[in-house]
Amino acid sequence: MKKFADLLIERISETSNPTVMGIDPLIEYVPDSIQKKYGNDKEPSLESAAMAITDFNKRLLDCVQGIIPVVKPQLAYFEMLGVPGIKSFFDTVKYAKEKGFLVIADGKRNDILSTASCYAKAYLGEKSFDETKNLSGFYADALTVNPYLGFDGIKPFVDECEKNGKGIFILVRTSNPSAVDFQDIKTESGEPLYIKVAEKVFEWGKGIMGENKYSSVGAVVGATWPEQASELRKTMPHTIILVPGYGAQGGKGDSAAKSFDKDGRGAIVNASRSLMCAYKKNEFAHEDFEEATYKEALRMKDDLNSAISGKSD
Amino acid sequence: MKKFADLLIERISETSNPTVMGIDPLIEYVPDSIQKKYGNDKEPSLESAAMAITDFNKRLLDCVQGIIPVVKPQLAYFEMLGVPGIKSFFDTVKYAKEKGFLVIADGKRNDILSTASCYAKAYLGEKSFDETKNLSGFYADALTVNPYLGFDGIKPFVDECEKNGKGIFILVRTSNPSAVDFQDIKTESGEPLYIKVAEKVFEWGKGIMGENKYSSVGAVVGATWPEQASELRKTMPHTIILVPGYGAQGGKGDSAAKSFDKDGRGAIVNASRSLMCAYKKNEFAHEDFEEATYKEALRMKDDLNSAISGKSD
Repeated sequence: MKKFADLLIERISETSNPTVMGIDPLIEYVPDSIQKKYGNDKEPSLESAAMAITDFNKRLLDCVQGIIPVVKPQLAYFEMLGVPGIKSFFDTVKYAKEKGFLVIADGKRNDILSTASCYAKAYLGEKSFDETKNLSGFYADALTVNPYLGFDGIKPFVDECEKNGKGIFILVRTSNPSAVDFQDIKTESGEPLYIKVAEKVFEWGKGIMGENKYSSVGAVVGATWPEQASELRKTMPHTIILVPGYGAQGGKGDSAAKSFDKDGRGAIVNASRSLMCAYKKNEFAHEDFEEATYKEALRMKDDLNSAISGKSD
Repeated sequence: MKKFADLLIERISETSNPTVMGIDPLIEYVPDSIQKKYGNDKEPSLESAAMAITDFNKRLLDCVQGIIPVVKPQLAYFEMLGVPGIKSFFDTVKYAKEKGFLVIADGKRNDILSTASCYAKAYLGEKSFDETKNLSGFYADALTVNPYLGFDGIKPFVDECEKNGKGIFILVRTSNPSAVDFQDIKTESGEPLYIKVAEKVFEWGKGIMGENKYSSVGAVVGATWPEQASELRKTMPHTIILVPGYGAQGGKGDSAAKSFDKDGRGAIVNASRSLMCAYKKNEFAHEDFEEATYKEALRMKDDLNSAISGKSD
């Protein structure tokens, strides 16, 4: 079975684009015409909002197909709409997979071993009912996870990755301002906590290396921290880095480029709002939302590729 | 509006029982008779498994009503069954609330501010659609959260707690063996990371103190670590501690008692498998599952109360 890391690198290579489109669907992002179609303008409900969001997501996926290789639906936005929201998540993932996207479920899941194995089966595997029947809750290719519980909370995810050709991205240094609160705490050895986490992430991924010398156990390092990103690229030489924070959160192409290796590989860069809401930008004021997202996707691709090719460290 | 901490302390006092029944519903835990009712024995599916689980959960809730004041459904087990599983979670929470239980959604959610606010609205608040309409995804009373992202990832939860009389329990020292991997890392000041987290949890909770001198911002400290529990009880004098790991994970009443204050308050103790699967124990071999759970609930209540009243520190 092909390893997730190899599949990811192939798709990036085919599209010449390391962009991930984050799907963080607030109903406020959905153009009025789509909201009207489901009656969400007159009689808003969890159901009508979720249906409008599913439709919006599908149209966004259509317009970046072949340009952007990976999408990252954020579970929190779907959970906010309760059961209809989770149905929308399921439908969005299913559609994205049918269209050939790799799907990273962004859930930052974490728990003790027995419970983590349920999350692992939900997103990266299947629940066995008897010797013949296995059923999958959701059909993602990868999942973001939180390291606070240590290795036995990570192992069930790694096991499913190995078994099913899936991937995980473990939080190392997050993109938010308060990342410093705990992640930067200096440990006895003088290194901050995030370096200790990075060392473990690198170690945990060694057993699941692809042919391209990258592991299916990846890491999350925010584009808002370029200095830490350069350091972490070195600490985790075989770890694919998922870089959030590009665009609306303030991260630039140059900052994101710090997470790539000298050959321009080993990282993927996420943008959510700047792609989903491109139609709200002045420069795209006269475009429909699909045209605006399409153009922003091409702009971001060029921005990233020129930043990666011009990076100095 | 009554604060969550006060509501919790009242319910514990009314029942004289600081037990939380964890609802970690594996289909393997559900008695054959219930599985048959939904055809899950012959033709297992996510739907039939989820329906059998909902039925099982409701009957468990019925048999401990009035004895156990709080329940803690674990989201991972429901997510493993996909969309039907989340429907089962919703139905279980709804039924538990109708029966008068306080409900802690165990999801260990975490993210950056904008995303965390979606999780906060999903479990502790409502999504606003316009000036008049607010809708809640799930209707829990409290949620477990992970601290790795620091304060801006916690604040949206605290805000919803203040607004809606809800609570959170932040992971401090988890019950699993690998808790030591990061939580025990010594920081520059000589204290382990979990103490730094505990200090912040205490601080973050100060703005939302109840009349009973406990905050609605609680902490998770495993029963499997009695030494750390005694220390953390002192570090967080006004923090309600949720103690997992009692029963099947090996924690005893004496260990759990370390998290209570000298007046026998300030903590709640979770047991999942030992209550849900009481009917699989030898001593209850001739009972139906409801009778077995009922008896185990009374045994646990007595065990905890005698351990709390006899505690030495």
